[in-house]
Amino acid sequence: MIDISANAVSFDRLCSGRPILVDVRRAAEVCPALNDNVLLHAGPPVLWEEMCCPMRAGAECAMVYEGWAPSYGKARDLGASGRIRFEPTHHQSFVGPVAGIVSPSMWVFCVKNETFGNWAYCTMSEGMGRALRFGAQGDDVLSRLNWMEKVLGPALAEAIRRSGGIDIMEIIRRSLEMGDECHNRHEGARLLFLRQILPHLLSSRLTRDSLRAIIDFVADNYYFFVNISMAACKALSDAIVDLPGSTLVSAMTRNGKEFGIRVSGLGHRWFTAPCNRIHGICFDGYEETDGNPDLGDSSITETAGIGAFAMAASPAIARYIGGTSGELLQHTLEMYRITVGEHPDLRIPALDYRGVPTGIDVRRVVETGITPIINTSIAHREPGIGQIGAGRTRAPLACFTAAFEALSRQLI
Amino acid sequence: MIDISANAVSFDRLCSGRPILVDVRRAAEVCPALNDNVLLHAGPPVLWEEMCCPMRAGAECAMVYEGWAPSYGKARDLGASGRIRFEPTHHQSFVGPVAGIVSPSMWVFCVKNETFGNWAYCTMSEGMGRALRFGAQGDDVLSRLNWMEKVLGPALAEAIRRSGGIDIMEIIRRSLEMGDECHNRHEGARLLFLRQILPHLLSSRLTRDSLRAIIDFVADNYYFFVNISMAACKALSDAIVDLPGSTLVSAMTRNGKEFGIRVSGLGHRWFTAPCNRIHGICFDGYEETDGNPDLGDSSITETAGIGAFAMAASPAIARYIGGTSGELLQHTLEMYRITVGEHPDLRIPALDYRGVPTGIDVRRVVETGITPIINTSIAHREPGIGQIGAGRTRAPLACFTAAFEALSRQLI
Repeated sequence: MIDISANAVSFDRLCSGRPILVDVRRAAEVCPALNDNVLLHAGPPVLWEEMCCPMRAGAECAMVYEGWAPSYGKARDLGASGRIRFEPTHHQSFVGPVAGIVSPSMWVFCVKNETFGNWAYCTMSEGMGRALRFGAQGDDVLSRLNWMEKVLGPALAEAIRRSGGIDIMEIIRRSLEMGDECHNRHEGARLLFLRQILPHLLSSRLTRDSLRAIIDFVADNYYFFVNISMAACKALSDAIVDLPGSTLVSAMTRNGKEFGIRVSGLGHRWFTAPCNRIHGICFDGYEETDGNPDLGDSSITETAGIGAFAMAASPAIARYIGGTSGELLQHTLEMYRITVGEHPDLRIPALDYRGVPTGIDVRRVVETGITPIINTSIAHREPGIGQIGAGRTRAPLACFTAAFEALSRQLI
Repeated sequence: MIDISANAVSFDRLCSGRPILVDVRRAAEVCPALNDNVLLHAGPPVLWEEMCCPMRAGAECAMVYEGWAPSYGKARDLGASGRIRFEPTHHQSFVGPVAGIVSPSMWVFCVKNETFGNWAYCTMSEGMGRALRFGAQGDDVLSRLNWMEKVLGPALAEAIRRSGGIDIMEIIRRSLEMGDECHNRHEGARLLFLRQILPHLLSSRLTRDSLRAIIDFVADNYYFFVNISMAACKALSDAIVDLPGSTLVSAMTRNGKEFGIRVSGLGHRWFTAPCNRIHGICFDGYEETDGNPDLGDSSITETAGIGAFAMAASPAIARYIGGTSGELLQHTLEMYRITVGEHPDLRIPALDYRGVPTGIDVRRVVETGITPIINTSIAHREPGIGQIGAGRTRAPLACFTAAFEALSRQLI
């Protein structure tokens, strides 16, 4: 049965969550499956043969990084051999940007939803351009991953443990007042995070050179905060998984071929449809048609009410993803039509502190035909290249109509 | 003669300035007059007998801080004795927030306008609430001033010298994209500044405790950046002082009794009128009527096109000074009617990157009757108390009509 009050409970759980960054650990420590020849990937389930190029290239890069294969070619054979199992990040309380590849040695942010006790994990951002998650391959990519493994990960782990936990909700709240939407813009959030861990970095036994390198990476890596934001939004959204009768979306994610959603009242079942293309601004020398269709778990931010849903707070993002300030404002206003409420803590100054549109209702999406807007980066559709730009896209309506039918069948 | 092309030159000079923070030094080192029983104060010239209470209380606090008087009572006698000379900050290439008191031992930001070679100076912010500049007195005020003199000043001096100079225009440009207007809101600017000096602080021989204390003060002192912003805007505005024929305002400032402006084509002459009251939000236990009329040199920021003129970039400031996001937007739009151009580098994302309204034209103010809007903090009108809130006010029309008449006489 669809139970209207279930959505009230669902919305309340979504808004009352309190994600705290409490640790940074090796992926294999928090996800034992990774010790068993498993790699995680973004989006709904997909077989090796069906993976889009950037995802497969990212997986190959991870196999070389882990030392499972001596070359990208051998990694391709290994991937195809069936000896590696590929599992969606979401099935392990993980999220990952773009290809979303998670391998055992990668350090991951560990976020606990203090209100409900559930945990969520996300890898650390490598930065823009040539990065594993965009399907880039090469020594530059591997050497950065090695520095993150040997220097950045252990240092952040020590600092975050010393801090006693960092309130990510508070950073997101303040950064919405600083022109961020916390998916594709986090200029304020990154500096607020740096400011909070700084005293704890200073208390460590790091050399001043390592300290300086870490500060530079956290402050200047454009994407540094989005992985933390994603883990926080996953921790928030998982609090509404499997609430009988609730028609709110508990996850939106893309594997580069299929866009998948989960609905609170329908548990862990995926409802999928082909991913849309991304329209935005490409780096010099590339154009939209070079881009892979929509890819990655980062749409968990929109699922929680920020990202593109909060674009009215982030007019400066227009220079990165395209659009006019009026269009960005309209996107937020439109999202109020498909959500059940306004977040009591995450507010938009330009709308006189109206709360961000929160709690996507499958029924409202189907009734209005308005699909969730998503801010995202653009990966080159060919393997080995990387990020070529950023822009906006929409979730495909078909996921929502399929979920709506499943919900309707519960009425019988 | 009024020469229209003179305003084009004037506007161009105003916009092409490049303020660089190159040093921090003792006030007496950059202003030798201070060694000669001189104290600087904000606003147009004012005699001790005529000073508003917060200014006189701030001067008394400075005399005790300098060891010129053993008590605030004795300082009052010294002030009244005529043995201390009081001079406007603007007469010494200085600006100072609120009371604007500058005494020899205070460390000051030294900003050079690289384009034109002129220098401007401003003291360092003590923070909110109970501070000398708001007319507060007491051991808490003095101990903070002593820490700033012994620890903060020398440390920032070393770090800024090591940095080779910090581009303040670039920090202001970026912070306008982060919801700041750089007069009463600088949440982004402060962190951008911290991020820039951090590597140079780390290179110093500071103990980690001092380092931590300095980082906390720079990051958490709400007003830390405005003094730098003011020095930068003074360096920009001084480039248009004394341009024959130009009707653009080169300075706006208040001593708490009189509001004074200078006009480019009229050199160093002051045109004054009584200060208006401030309307805004008061801290608990206070109300607007407790506030002193408009006070301080900080309106140099509006003179340069930021501050209240850029409020459309800063919707979150409404929570601090009052107003709706629509009102704040309208303030910026209204200021385009009394300015001659839009700044090519300082732009407002919410207006699709339109430049901030820059170059206040005395003639347009008189023709339209629209006076410059100013964001400011509120000092208690009684001595010894300090800041009680923040809000908005307007420059009085009479200064502009008086200047307009003086310009008109040049036509004869």
